[in-house]
Amino acid sequence: MNLNDTIVALSTAPGAAAIASVRLSGENAIGITEQAFRSRFGKLLSEQKTHSILLGDFYQKNTLLDEVLVSVFKNPNSYTGEDVVEISCHGSVFIQQKIVQTLQDLGARLAEPGEFTLRAFLNKKMDLAQAEAVSDLIASESEAAHHIAVQHLRGGISSSLGELRDQLLKFASLIELELDFSEEDVAFADRVQLNELVQKIKNTLKNLLDSFATGNAIKNGIPVALVGKPNAGKSSLLNALLDEDKAIVSEIEGTTRDSIEDTLTIGGIQYRFIDTAGLRQTDDVVEAIGVQRTKEKMENASIILYVVDPQHQTPTATAEALKSMQPNNATLLLVLNKKDLIKESALHSYLKELDVLGVDALVFAIETISAHNKEDVERLKTHFSGQVQWNTGNALISNQRHWGALQAAMQSINEVAQGIQENRSSDLLAIDIRQTLHELGTITGEVTTDDILGNIFANFCIGK
Amino acid sequence: MNLNDTIVALSTAPGAAAIASVRLSGENAIGITEQAFRSRFGKLLSEQKTHSILLGDFYQKNTLLDEVLVSVFKNPNSYTGEDVVEISCHGSVFIQQKIVQTLQDLGARLAEPGEFTLRAFLNKKMDLAQAEAVSDLIASESEAAHHIAVQHLRGGISSSLGELRDQLLKFASLIELELDFSEEDVAFADRVQLNELVQKIKNTLKNLLDSFATGNAIKNGIPVALVGKPNAGKSSLLNALLDEDKAIVSEIEGTTRDSIEDTLTIGGIQYRFIDTAGLRQTDDVVEAIGVQRTKEKMENASIILYVVDPQHQTPTATAEALKSMQPNNATLLLVLNKKDLIKESALHSYLKELDVLGVDALVFAIETISAHNKEDVERLKTHFSGQVQWNTGNALISNQRHWGALQAAMQSINEVAQGIQENRSSDLLAIDIRQTLHELGTITGEVTTDDILGNIFANFCIGK
Repeated sequence: MNLNDTIVALSTAPGAAAIASVRLSGENAIGITEQAFRSRFGKLLSEQKTHSILLGDFYQKNTLLDEVLVSVFKNPNSYTGEDVVEISCHGSVFIQQKIVQTLQDLGARLAEPGEFTLRAFLNKKMDLAQAEAVSDLIASESEAAHHIAVQHLRGGISSSLGELRDQLLKFASLIELELDFSEEDVAFADRVQLNELVQKIKNTLKNLLDSFATGNAIKNGIPVALVGKPNAGKSSLLNALLDEDKAIVSEIEGTTRDSIEDTLTIGGIQYRFIDTAGLRQTDDVVEAIGVQRTKEKMENASIILYVVDPQHQTPTATAEALKSMQPNNATLLLVLNKKDLIKESALHSYLKELDVLGVDALVFAIETISAHNKEDVERLKTHFSGQVQWNTGNALISNQRHWGALQAAMQSINEVAQGIQENRSSDLLAIDIRQTLHELGTITGEVTTDDILGNIFANFCIGK
Repeated sequence: MNLNDTIVALSTAPGAAAIASVRLSGENAIGITEQAFRSRFGKLLSEQKTHSILLGDFYQKNTLLDEVLVSVFKNPNSYTGEDVVEISCHGSVFIQQKIVQTLQDLGARLAEPGEFTLRAFLNKKMDLAQAEAVSDLIASESEAAHHIAVQHLRGGISSSLGELRDQLLKFASLIELELDFSEEDVAFADRVQLNELVQKIKNTLKNLLDSFATGNAIKNGIPVALVGKPNAGKSSLLNALLDEDKAIVSEIEGTTRDSIEDTLTIGGIQYRFIDTAGLRQTDDVVEAIGVQRTKEKMENASIILYVVDPQHQTPTATAEALKSMQPNNATLLLVLNKKDLIKESALHSYLKELDVLGVDALVFAIETISAHNKEDVERLKTHFSGQVQWNTGNALISNQRHWGALQAAMQSINEVAQGIQENRSSDLLAIDIRQTLHELGTITGEVTTDDILGNIFANFCIGK
């Protein structure tokens, strides 16, 4: 990847629409566009001020392709920090393609995935955690996921770690100074103060590491397994849950949504319903929990909705099934379905028997509903929203790479703590402190390798 | 629909992408946006020059939604002729939705389909045929369809008709002047000159009407029926045809493409392969042409590819099938498939027998291919491209509404011609001339009704 090239890509979603936008970045962005563009009133792109727009015609050789608006952003006042041109055209798939092709013919190179943002990072328009937040922001589909991404885009995690890293850097310098005077056995770095800082860093790291479970679940959707015997009403329940949010779901029109599992947003958090269709193929699987696939899916679930038809499953069978789910470490919700088909007295004694069997202690809540009549489904939802706290003001880690770096940092800072306690020599301490600084630096990008950058930006969409 | 409202809509394609754009138009476009936007350097949107861009933050109440670029276009120098604001945000589905919602909460109304372009028409930024071309331009998927739409967008049809309409308007005035002096039996309008103009208009109308078949087929794709006995190799042929253009097809990524029939672009023209899968269910359907559904599909086809496996169909059967297809008025191409499985001498005598049976006179061309080996499929394609002439420089009509109006205009101009010949009185002539002017006026929009406008813009996408 030659970062001196001028790059081009469609930056809006593919498909026909009113408007589409093609973006260029690099030294020749304006010059290349100028060759294909004739402004309506004879003005030249190259003489335009930054952040200004010209109306005109875009040509492929001598063929008029479209009437377009061309926005100019001049180095360094642009997204990438380079000269940037945005061409806003009619949203025809044909035109989008031809404009990109024409600009390639004139010398622009098709951008690699994430290359615009990579250039923004390399030109110090944002740090690495912020660059990663751009990708998360684009993918965010719920209020909570959006909240985390915006926090990171505004440098949330960078500021949490930045100050501590700066302080640790000072100690590193002092300790390395000690090495120069090693024969004199002096200590420039106050070990008590260093120890305090180390404890503070450990606390911060611990909080961030602990937040990963929540952050990651919010980013990807909280996994919910809907299990139960065939005909217990799992599908009806899923439909009832989704139905009430149908308006929101259909409004979103996400293109990814179609191919993935059903999702549902409650209280700003996205829940992802895990397909347990496999359960329907064999009888009594839940009791046996014998099928490996189902087992794995339930292990990954944060919430298990166990759906029971009280007319076709004894309280004892229900209790046993719930007991077998205990090792899953998920929040268990017991749903007694089809209350419209059962006498109130019968339901009452069913609940009483469950009580005697000690089911209350096994589950987070028991709800009686009728999925078919959409009765009390709303009440069931209230148990979902209590499971995750996200808008506490604290930064949440949602990125696997950050989690890995924080874990490595935790390991080396523990070594530092151990070293202080054991009164290890300055040179040994210095090694562990340097390692901690390195790990923390990889998060914000003070330390990077081509591998790290390659991995991060390969996951971006083209055009960003 | 209140045209004094300020309207808002997502103008880029839905789905996650690097960038999305939300557009407002109307008196309060700037004021409404200002309430949710804080520019990075304290600049006010309301003090921005037209065609300028500000970077800043977009808020929903006190929640930061995104960092955005806001473009301002001031009345009358905008697409609609009103104040227009474009908000370029990160292309998250969630953010797109929230920004539109926030602007609605602040007083903007969700735009009706095509309302931006309707306003552009009403504010005389374009005539009606140009407004319709915007919709065609967005939908265009081939070079030829794009070419027609751009021609219309640049006023191609308007200028063809405009001058003639102006001249006819002069005659209308003169003839109506005659009415004022009707007792004196004078003729201000030279009947010879009028007759010349009428003939000229008739010619222009005829050319435009004749172009509709081509224009409409180009816009919607030339319908091609692929027929033949089961196992003749229709699917293999279709795959071979599509395969060679696969790169182009997959590059386009159209969202509509998925749900429609297979399409293929050859020489800038889109061909639409009509599903004749029904043929496969019954045997020997082609010979009998008995199935109504297939019959209708073949009637709609401009090109029929009749695919034969010479080892399993006699020359006589082939000739009879081709004869039965004659009434379809389509270009017939006979494809002898599986040449890799048949001896050259056998193929040769098959062709000779066809010659004796007079098949040459029935078809446009006979090709021997192997769909399986993709042999000579390219040569088959050359027969496609000769079928349609589109870049002759003449305006092509592709719009059903224009065709209807032109037909009505032709009818009344014929009445005028008849009237001149029969020396009808000025008042009778005046009525038919007025009618012609009216019909021609509906095309460019000098004459419109709410019904016409409603029908046209209802077919637009929201956001245009």
